Amino acid sequence: ATAASTTSSTIRLAVIPGDGIGPEVTAEALKVLDAVAPAGLRFEQSHYDLGAERYLATGEVLPDSVLAEVRGHDAILLGAVGGKPNDPNLPPGILERGLLLRLRFELDHYVNLRPSRIYPGVTSPLAPHVLEGRDDVDFVVVREGTEGPYTGNGGALRVGTPHEVATEVSVNTAFGVERVLRDAFARAQRRPRKKLTLVHKTNVLVHAGSVWWRLTQAVARDFPEITVDYMHVDAAMIHLTTDPALFDVIVTDNLFGDIITDLAAAITGGIGLAASGNVNPDRTAPSMFEPVHGSAPDIAGQQKADPTAAIGSVALLLDHLGHSGTAAVVDAAIVADLAARTGAPRTTSEIGDAIAARVAG
Amino acid sequence: ATAASTTSSTIRLAVIPGDGIGPEVTAEALKVLDAVAPAGLRFEQSHYDLGAERYLATGEVLPDSVLAEVRGHDAILLGAVGGKPNDPNLPPGILERGLLLRLRFELDHYVNLRPSRIYPGVTSPLAPHVLEGRDDVDFVVVREGTEGPYTGNGGALRVGTPHEVATEVSVNTAFGVERVLRDAFARAQRRPRKKLTLVHKTNVLVHAGSVWWRLTQAVARDFPEITVDYMHVDAAMIHLTTDPALFDVIVTDNLFGDIITDLAAAITGGIGLAASGNVNPDRTAPSMFEPVHGSAPDIAGQQKADPTAAIGSVALLLDHLGHSGTAAVVDAAIVADLAARTGAPRTTSEIGDAIAARVAG
Ligand SMILES: CC(C)[C@H](C(=O)O)[C@@H](O)C(=O)O
Ligand SMILES: CC(C)[C@H](C(=O)O)[C@@H](O)C(=O)O
Repeated sequence: ATAASTTSSTIRLAVIPGDGIGPEVTAEALKVLDAVAPAGLRFEQSHYDLGAERYLATGEVLPDSVLAEVRGHDAILLGAVGGKPNDPNLPPGILERGLLLRLRFELDHYVNLRPSRIYPGVTSPLAPHVLEGRDDVDFVVVREGTEGPYTGNGGALRVGTPHEVATEVSVNTAFGVERVLRDAFARAQRRPRKKLTLVHKTNVLVHAGSVWWRLTQAVARDFPEITVDYMHVDAAMIHLTTDPALFDVIVTDNLFGDIITDLAAAITGGIGLAASGNVNPDRTAPSMFEPVHGSAPDIAGQQKADPTAAIGSVALLLDHLGHSGTAAVVDAAIVADLAARTGAPRTTSEIGDAIAARVAG
Repeated sequence: ATAASTTSSTIRLAVIPGDGIGPEVTAEALKVLDAVAPAGLRFEQSHYDLGAERYLATGEVLPDSVLAEVRGHDAILLGAVGGKPNDPNLPPGILERGLLLRLRFELDHYVNLRPSRIYPGVTSPLAPHVLEGRDDVDFVVVREGTEGPYTGNGGALRVGTPHEVATEVSVNTAFGVERVLRDAFARAQRRPRKKLTLVHKTNVLVHAGSVWWRLTQAVARDFPEITVDYMHVDAAMIHLTTDPALFDVIVTDNLFGDIITDLAAAITGGIGLAASGNVNPDRTAPSMFEPVHGSAPDIAGQQKADPTAAIGSVALLLDHLGHSGTAAVVDAAIVADLAARTGAPRTTSEIGDAIAARVAG
């Protein structure tokens, strides 16, 4: 990849297709990006070959020089990374921590943004009686992305003996909690329902819970129009499955957010539709956009993956870069494509073609 | 409460009705216990007045002397504890930690047992297409009860300043993990499907995940008939909502277990039906049985609560004490009562009466 000179209408995009279905869905995302880009806006792509394949071939996960190059871009589009389950040559978590989480931490992606909507035409695993007569299910989870149990703090003693002790430390700072809360409140302020739900486990995790709770109250004073609610993470499981229309903006810790967003994806029609942004709202480094799903090596290369989540990630990317009108065009094309689905299976590229045609047309 | 002399056919039961709907549902549970007790088996009850009301009146949560008395019993039946939400006189979490969790830790309830079934006649929030054509949904979560993020390890620095740092430490020992795994494998061995799924987040929580993963492999060698599976906690959200029949025995950490069991309760018809046991399999202290639901102060005293979860907890109690035949009678009465429900609301005591009549009849 080369860092070419740019004009103001050129967006430098780092593309990390990754493993498994990653390259397939990324190709469709780029196809749609290409089709939707307004005249005068150019996306200059650098592709980075990172993931399980590279690690298995070279032992490299994310060389510092590559990270430095990636950092020089305006945004990152990532497909999915991860090798075959239980590959003995691939230590568990090495790519997740060495690549995905390293990017999130190094680039200060403190807002992990995961919108959830039940789109017309999409089959939810929730029963009709749960959904009917309620408002539309349309909420966004603002998951903290740089703290909590994800910091890699912790260790182990007497490993492999009957006296082993292993710890994991959740680290929560006022700095880190307040900034993600401010972002979440600001997002709630821009949404019609203006409601924010803090999800935590304050009755057990008292120290972390206390700083989240106190700062939520404090930041709320700057957003008097927002209705603020609190829910324990276990209770959130119940409400997400029995009345998901309750939610507007959910703000939560890194690990709770990981769990909640997979449930949110499941109830709104599956992980194949869930887009996400790893956002650095201060723009001190490029933000990264990726589908929530993994690399699904079992169906890789078969044109079976649904690229909708990757395409939705392009919409989040455009919105983050200030092209909210163009982002809305992509979102509308996704909605229209989903509504028109007949149930007959299409290939990955057929879905990409259809959405690209809609944004162009 | 007095510690009277007992004969071998007397079971000394400590009853903690608690707050809100706790006393109402406990009364029905005891009604059923009374009706089902086989000739010659006597339940000698000591009632302990613990919970929000006592705390608000006296400042006491669980005096050491009361704990010592409770410890002298064969089992504990608990209703629910917890005051009104946001009561300024009730510090958040004080009862949960000072009473519920203290009992679990002091009495070494390392197996937190939570069965989940979709009973005939019960409405699940999951769509018919998710459930039809699959096996019955009938699994049990074996949640570790004395370690993980629940140990109260952690602290905070510079509280209330912009430099606050709050930590929560998940503590995992080989001793603690192995013993709960052995219990879970033994339970899987007694079930027809003989399948065990470890749920964790080994790709991020590497130290804790590693000890859970390695010991699962090690204990599996002693249970060659058991099919062992692994799932990340986020992926478990998806499978629980899109194909819950996959599961037989789930074994997991204390916090993941808290989250998963509320989701399990929700998808199998609600927290009003979910029973649980806080079990000390070594019988060095009494085990405690309680509905998963809370004290629901908003509906307290109105005879609106469903006592089924509390009655199901009595079945778990009987089973733990070796009266599995009697436990099965209670379970069958619950199943029959659920199947016969017409949708017309009944009072708490009407449901208790109906189930008591079935076990007696
Ligand atoms: C792959 C894993 C490290 C990651 C996470 O836990 O954040 C994933 O589950 C996600 O939600 O993006
Ligand atoms: C009340 C609370 C401390 C408790 C827990 O977190 O274990 C509850 O949610 C439960 O599941 O029994």
